Amino acid sequence: MSFDKLDKLGTKLHALSHALSILGADEATHMAPGGGEARAEAMSVLSGMHHRESVAPEIGDWLDAAEQEDLSDDQKAAVREWRRRYVGLTCLPPEFVERQTRASMRCEQLWRDLRARNDWAGFAPVLQEVVELERERAARRGEVLGLSPYDALIEMYDPGSRVEQIAPVFDELKTFLVDFVPRALEVQEKRREKAPTRPLSGNYPIEKQRELGLAMMAAVGFDLTRGSLSVSHHPFCGGVPTDVRITTRYRSDEFLSSLMGTLHETGHALYEQNLPKEWAHWPLGEARGMSMHESQSLFVEKQIGRNPAFWHWALPLVEQHLGESWSQDEILDHVHHVERGLIRVDADEVTYPLHVILRFEIEQELIGGTLEVTDLPEAWDERMKRYLGLSTIDSPKDGPMQDVHWPSSAFGYFPSYTLGAMMAAQQWNAIKREIPDLDDQLSRGEFEAVNDWRRKHIWSQASRWSTPELIERATGEPLNARHFREHLEERYG
Amino acid sequence: MSFDKLDKLGTKLHALSHALSILGADEATHMAPGGGEARAEAMSVLSGMHHRESVAPEIGDWLDAAEQEDLSDDQKAAVREWRRRYVGLTCLPPEFVERQTRASMRCEQLWRDLRARNDWAGFAPVLQEVVELERERAARRGEVLGLSPYDALIEMYDPGSRVEQIAPVFDELKTFLVDFVPRALEVQEKRREKAPTRPLSGNYPIEKQRELGLAMMAAVGFDLTRGSLSVSHHPFCGGVPTDVRITTRYRSDEFLSSLMGTLHETGHALYEQNLPKEWAHWPLGEARGMSMHESQSLFVEKQIGRNPAFWHWALPLVEQHLGESWSQDEILDHVHHVERGLIRVDADEVTYPLHVILRFEIEQELIGGTLEVTDLPEAWDERMKRYLGLSTIDSPKDGPMQDVHWPSSAFGYFPSYTLGAMMAAQQWNAIKREIPDLDDQLSRGEFEAVNDWRRKHIWSQASRWSTPELIERATGEPLNARHFREHLEERYG
Ligand SMILES: [Zn+2]
Ligand SMILES: [Zn+2]
Repeated sequence: MSFDKLDKLGTKLHALSHALSILGADEATHMAPGGGEARAEAMSVLSGMHHRESVAPEIGDWLDAAEQEDLSDDQKAAVREWRRRYVGLTCLPPEFVERQTRASMRCEQLWRDLRARNDWAGFAPVLQEVVELERERAARRGEVLGLSPYDALIEMYDPGSRVEQIAPVFDELKTFLVDFVPRALEVQEKRREKAPTRPLSGNYPIEKQRELGLAMMAAVGFDLTRGSLSVSHHPFCGGVPTDVRITTRYRSDEFLSSLMGTLHETGHALYEQNLPKEWAHWPLGEARGMSMHESQSLFVEKQIGRNPAFWHWALPLVEQHLGESWSQDEILDHVHHVERGLIRVDADEVTYPLHVILRFEIEQELIGGTLEVTDLPEAWDERMKRYLGLSTIDSPKDGPMQDVHWPSSAFGYFPSYTLGAMMAAQQWNAIKREIPDLDDQLSRGEFEAVNDWRRKHIWSQASRWSTPELIERATGEPLNARHFREHLEERYG
Repeated sequence: MSFDKLDKLGTKLHALSHALSILGADEATHMAPGGGEARAEAMSVLSGMHHRESVAPEIGDWLDAAEQEDLSDDQKAAVREWRRRYVGLTCLPPEFVERQTRASMRCEQLWRDLRARNDWAGFAPVLQEVVELERERAARRGEVLGLSPYDALIEMYDPGSRVEQIAPVFDELKTFLVDFVPRALEVQEKRREKAPTRPLSGNYPIEKQRELGLAMMAAVGFDLTRGSLSVSHHPFCGGVPTDVRITTRYRSDEFLSSLMGTLHETGHALYEQNLPKEWAHWPLGEARGMSMHESQSLFVEKQIGRNPAFWHWALPLVEQHLGESWSQDEILDHVHHVERGLIRVDADEVTYPLHVILRFEIEQELIGGTLEVTDLPEAWDERMKRYLGLSTIDSPKDGPMQDVHWPSSAFGYFPSYTLGAMMAAQQWNAIKREIPDLDDQLSRGEFEAVNDWRRKHIWSQASRWSTPELIERATGEPLNARHFREHLEERYG
């Protein structure tokens, strides 16, 4: 059976992926500083092996044959997803992939330095080269996949998502937010006039913050026998489903940022820990894509972790671990803080989508060729003023130079963040319809029912459906902005 | 050039080894408990890949061709060592290897359980099967390599070592020790009559013990930018030369056992950290073998770490970290403790060789077919009484069932421990001839000169020479028992 050949190859690729995932997590958490060069070399060789084995021409024959074989439903789904993966990996000539990889690695390296020096003039020509290659990739992929160029990029991160569906939803959200952000800021100002902010400062030993983080992780469903919490410079969720490595970083003068970061990564981890074990060595067994993954992390961070009911349960836990008592109002004042800013990664859940939509719109113009890199600072500034009332024209490092995505050729990735936020709200709404006392459960620290729903509707489905199919099957309606909008209005309006 | 093909293959195998080493160390130190099954599966697939790539028939052709090419001295040595490795890996039919692997895995698993239950009757037939297969392996390997069967096993752990050289040295050592152990015990008794033992007990926070261990590691030469110290159930030295992972375990009521263990593993680590970087991806670049490796760990643990001069420097460090003052005599009373016991791994440096020589003698009879497993308890007991005056006849778990080596088909490994101890003493003597004030240097915590000697004569040579060649080139004389004997007489006589 050709399916057995695919299955066997899956076991081999899975072992290489396992090694790469653990080596990657280890590098950021436990590796000795002098081990970097040999680690990079080993990982590059192993990645090369993984890639070569994934694109072998005989796989095409096996897929053709397997499609004619008498397979179970799961196996059929596995072949479908394998085909998608195989086409995605083989639709570009290796020489082109190499050329693009070299260009984006160079651009990313230069970017780190040029961004720090706010040197747009030095950066623009390097980015221009990356944009041109990305246009070529988009066109080539689009041709093979029968998609528009930009859709062919989105497809890499979010199978099935198309501009046709995303753009109107983003437009609606943008119109809403441009109007809503000032209202939310007003509400916040009034609240603070009545009850001034209690500063988020003190002295919180890292070991105690860690214990608090672990207690919350365990409570919201993280299986500590199949994962762990470490420290790294940039927080991440890595490792493998049977041993999920999440990280955070601590400030000893403040406890909230590490805690919210830990909850975010816990959301990613829950998805990984609950993927179906039987499919683990097939592409079918992986999490669906970037936006669905982000919907799981944002669900835990925002729908759960910034919910007043959650803090009813969480504040005694904070007091128990850190020996400090906070009132619900005092903590929510920080948890619901809204602020217009230049930097996407520092944004709150109200302003964040505007950062994303700006990039989504500009990306399309860059890929479509209606915008050139030289005109980027003006295009960015113009939208930034319209959407958030801020100018970046004098500081490109806080404008089009702020993210690693474009220098590293990850066009089409940005929408995931806000698609994730909308899908998280949409899932929350669907769960609430099934479990009317959801907030009460949260206020008692009960997360089983909400996790059961997510396990059944999202986690167990792995890559069986496209992103739009998965969200519609789970929530009973296609992706839309309504629930996210209502969520923001309820929390910040 | 065929050499380039070998070189390229080396890069690939090196990446797989890197992954396996880090995954192995990670498993014992940082892996979540539930991650074991998937880790075992991944490592077994990667090991299989490593093995298949290492025994590919074309490697034989490349070696033939490379031997005719115009190569540098280093490259010639690399080809030589590669050939040795290749022959060792390919001299047995894969079916036989599989059969033996299955039998020894089964025996090792049963052994864990049967040993705990002291069940010799249940264990004997399973071990018998392993012994028979090991006899077959020894004969097959011997035929290909032109060695006697038992030499063909030793060759796997210690290239170049032969019974012909080892046996007379062990005999001399045995004769000496059977007489010396009672003398050393008498000396100890008299010492304790004058100055009773200060009990090794207290309360030592693990974090402080760790800091003390790290300080000593760094002082004796461990490069903390290219390695680290963690905790594991069984202490080991693993990882890769650019990121050596050593481990220890702590008891909070006693600090000496963890510290001596840390020094031992530091000795292994120094060898790994100082292997020549340029050869890292060739077999030539690996440490020579088990006995030479053990000589490096024992050198740091015994020649340095149990040296009175060392404690002159170390005791203030202990006081600084643990806040407790010990006199030289008080600590040496523990550091030089001698005791006859049944268990090899608990033995001190005086009695340890008798445990090894007993096994060395019995192993040869088992492989030679002059002893059968059914007669093992009597053969063990008879020697144990003669060498150490102890009987194990009523407790096979403390007799022939005590070690994992035989159940796991590692016949020929035991001599390494005592060869290592003798070579460590022989190296110390050679260094002392070059550096007359060696003890003074130790008492000032100066380890540069001694490490320079070892780097030049041992570490930098990697696998360029056979074990007997390496020790003779380094010390100017072939392996012998004299320096170890004198070392024991000076310290314990
Ligand atoms: Zn995330
Ligand atoms: Zn050792």
